[in-house]
Amino acid sequence: MRIPSVSAEGHDPWMVRHSAEETAAWLERSGLQDVRLLDVPGAHPAVFGHTSGPAGSPTVLLYAHHDVQPPGDEKLWNSPAFEPTERGGRLFGRGTADDKAGIAVHAATLQAWRELHGGPPVNVSVFIEGEEEIASPHFREVVMHPEVLPELRKCIGVFVPEAGQDRDGGVEVLLGAKGVVELELVSSGEKWGRGPAHDVHSSLEAQVDSPTWHLVQALNTLVEKDGHTPAVEGFFDKVKPLNAVQLQMVQEHAAKTAESTVKQVLGVQHWVHDANWQDSLALLVSKPTINIEGLVAGYTGPGGKTVLPHRAVAKIDMRLVPDMTAADTLAKLQAHLAAKGFPDIEVNMSGGYNPTETDPNSKLIQAHLATYRRLGLDPQLWPRSAGSWPGCIFTEAPVSLPAGHYGLGHGAGAHAPDEYYLIESANPKVQGLDGAIASFVEYLYALA
Amino acid sequence: MRIPSVSAEGHDPWMVRHSAEETAAWLERSGLQDVRLLDVPGAHPAVFGHTSGPAGSPTVLLYAHHDVQPPGDEKLWNSPAFEPTERGGRLFGRGTADDKAGIAVHAATLQAWRELHGGPPVNVSVFIEGEEEIASPHFREVVMHPEVLPELRKCIGVFVPEAGQDRDGGVEVLLGAKGVVELELVSSGEKWGRGPAHDVHSSLEAQVDSPTWHLVQALNTLVEKDGHTPAVEGFFDKVKPLNAVQLQMVQEHAAKTAESTVKQVLGVQHWVHDANWQDSLALLVSKPTINIEGLVAGYTGPGGKTVLPHRAVAKIDMRLVPDMTAADTLAKLQAHLAAKGFPDIEVNMSGGYNPTETDPNSKLIQAHLATYRRLGLDPQLWPRSAGSWPGCIFTEAPVSLPAGHYGLGHGAGAHAPDEYYLIESANPKVQGLDGAIASFVEYLYALA
Repeated sequence: MRIPSVSAEGHDPWMVRHSAEETAAWLERSGLQDVRLLDVPGAHPAVFGHTSGPAGSPTVLLYAHHDVQPPGDEKLWNSPAFEPTERGGRLFGRGTADDKAGIAVHAATLQAWRELHGGPPVNVSVFIEGEEEIASPHFREVVMHPEVLPELRKCIGVFVPEAGQDRDGGVEVLLGAKGVVELELVSSGEKWGRGPAHDVHSSLEAQVDSPTWHLVQALNTLVEKDGHTPAVEGFFDKVKPLNAVQLQMVQEHAAKTAESTVKQVLGVQHWVHDANWQDSLALLVSKPTINIEGLVAGYTGPGGKTVLPHRAVAKIDMRLVPDMTAADTLAKLQAHLAAKGFPDIEVNMSGGYNPTETDPNSKLIQAHLATYRRLGLDPQLWPRSAGSWPGCIFTEAPVSLPAGHYGLGHGAGAHAPDEYYLIESANPKVQGLDGAIASFVEYLYALA
Repeated sequence: MRIPSVSAEGHDPWMVRHSAEETAAWLERSGLQDVRLLDVPGAHPAVFGHTSGPAGSPTVLLYAHHDVQPPGDEKLWNSPAFEPTERGGRLFGRGTADDKAGIAVHAATLQAWRELHGGPPVNVSVFIEGEEEIASPHFREVVMHPEVLPELRKCIGVFVPEAGQDRDGGVEVLLGAKGVVELELVSSGEKWGRGPAHDVHSSLEAQVDSPTWHLVQALNTLVEKDGHTPAVEGFFDKVKPLNAVQLQMVQEHAAKTAESTVKQVLGVQHWVHDANWQDSLALLVSKPTINIEGLVAGYTGPGGKTVLPHRAVAKIDMRLVPDMTAADTLAKLQAHLAAKGFPDIEVNMSGGYNPTETDPNSKLIQAHLATYRRLGLDPQLWPRSAGSWPGCIFTEAPVSLPAGHYGLGHGAGAHAPDEYYLIESANPKVQGLDGAIASFVEYLYALA
């Protein structure tokens, strides 16, 4: 966690490689075999390894990632982002919850199993990505790697370890995730053929077009008057509405979860469209979105500076639901901009992938549910995560495996300041480090 | 020029004070009397001083400013912004052209005059502001200061020294300047009562409103479909069109100036509305504008970060023509945003002032014209600068003086990288340092 393995562009790529090497060394020390870095040109390296259970036992793939989000504004952290610090039973630091504790906890468990019993009760392959936080631009290539694909084909499914308990100890079993497309929209005088080719004095705006106004006008076409619903032509064409079973899951979750707590945590007074709690959860699960992650143009420092910027950028993420695809949605966005009079605006996709769906009746998901129940919990089935992970690479052909998240424990603050992972729990319903390890142990016995 | 006297918020205010103190020390060494810092609460200090000519001679005010623009992206500079460096007869550095060379050149001239002749041929008061680059938020207060106003009332006019020659040696005599309002438009979840109170994971955009989309929609109402013409209700109500004499000035300037050179310098292929050269110059002089200086929301670093930002900011400058006023235009912008459904968007004005107009028949302007002609130049009268300076404080009641820019020499790159002031000229039509000094000497004799 001291290694700033930030995969975002502009950070130090050698730190991600350093993190991959240290992760590989850790897996080797934990007794895994055939540990190797998977190097695909231009990609931050992934790590692959394997440990054997009894002959004839099934194989499960553990998927995690060793890259992390940028720390953001370090002034908002109560301790340095890359100096893991324990306070009040929590380990604070970037990557603690998302996703390095998951690697450490499971590697330590596998090591203990090997030392005590000669190995775990099933075969475990471990696959640790290095680009999850930048929307996995090379993930398909890595998975299709001749050293990886045959290993995956041996598996009964893919599980993503997580400290999955909420503040009250509850757990969800996710049956999928939204897909995502991350991209930059760039308006520039150069590409537009209007406005200046470099920043000029702002007084010239009387005589010269502004690429920034051009971007504002282009962005404005992307959502409806409600300031929210995507207005890209055909955006909803392939959207599959929630089925009765999924709606039932939403209804049950709404009934069991305190809206006021969620609103307080998010700092939200009203849901979008003034939806009620249940409807807002249905939107969360079922609505594809176009979000502005960031805006950058001209002078961005304190106060003002009288420039007419030659370039303006909007950082966008689009979240996709079945049966939308990343490629099709990107093409629709490009076609929309061209049709609305903005063919010059660059659409630079940096990463993304399709939505993920997994069969609730698969062995993997049934093992998740059974283990949680054996541990005394009442897992809630959830149609899909509103966040994204590249599970589609596992769930779609040619791999075609079930995939899902599993694990007790608690963490928070992913992508935000003061990210933490719970070590010692004060609440008997929420597991700390020991309980997280125990839940993994139970899970592998259930699979066996 | 080694003192980074950046007045913009967030930079070191002590550097501007240090710059004021050094400027005052320089003026004292140059033989000026009663040199003092003018301290108005909350303002970066201005400097005031005086040197006497013969008894009964007129008094002229020299106005300059010792604060500078931020350096911007220092990677774009060929030498460090605050390390003045001479290359090819030019002195490069932030503040060289805008506006420290003006202070240095004129102080040195006044010193030489005192040493050689006991003093200049007229009384010269020197007033050096410390907040010009942030739109002079305390300027009216400073000018109305009981130590300043009586001094100003003795003057026949205010001149702004400048290295006013273009690349071909031509000079303009400006008869005014546009006014300006600089402000930030801030959309926040907190003020809006919708969206999150802090940045949250971008997946929540399905359920939670986005203050950034809210800002985009508000901005979109500020300009017409052409992406340029201000659409704020009543924005043009007080706009005085150019009169026949002013139009004649534009026509003459268009005929004498190479459009292609200007386009090349600005990196512009087409003027706004595809206007021809003369019409584009008329727009430059006569059209009030709303310009986006900067956009800042969410993640602004390299690559992406999946956040839903709780706050989005547009940095705006509006340029005003007679008879618009800063206060009225600001009020109209606020009323427009409220009427269009954006009453929550904060309008934080950081500085600004009204347009400036000066009588071409005033002694001051006639002295500018006569001196330029004596020095062999053909000065072009120009209705007003499209850029702004707080001259209205001088030209409006209660000061009510003519005010204008004057001086030979050449500089460029104000508000941009590689700002420079020409020291040694290779072109006999363009004056270097010596010629700039000589033009000031001739000017004071003309006034005398």
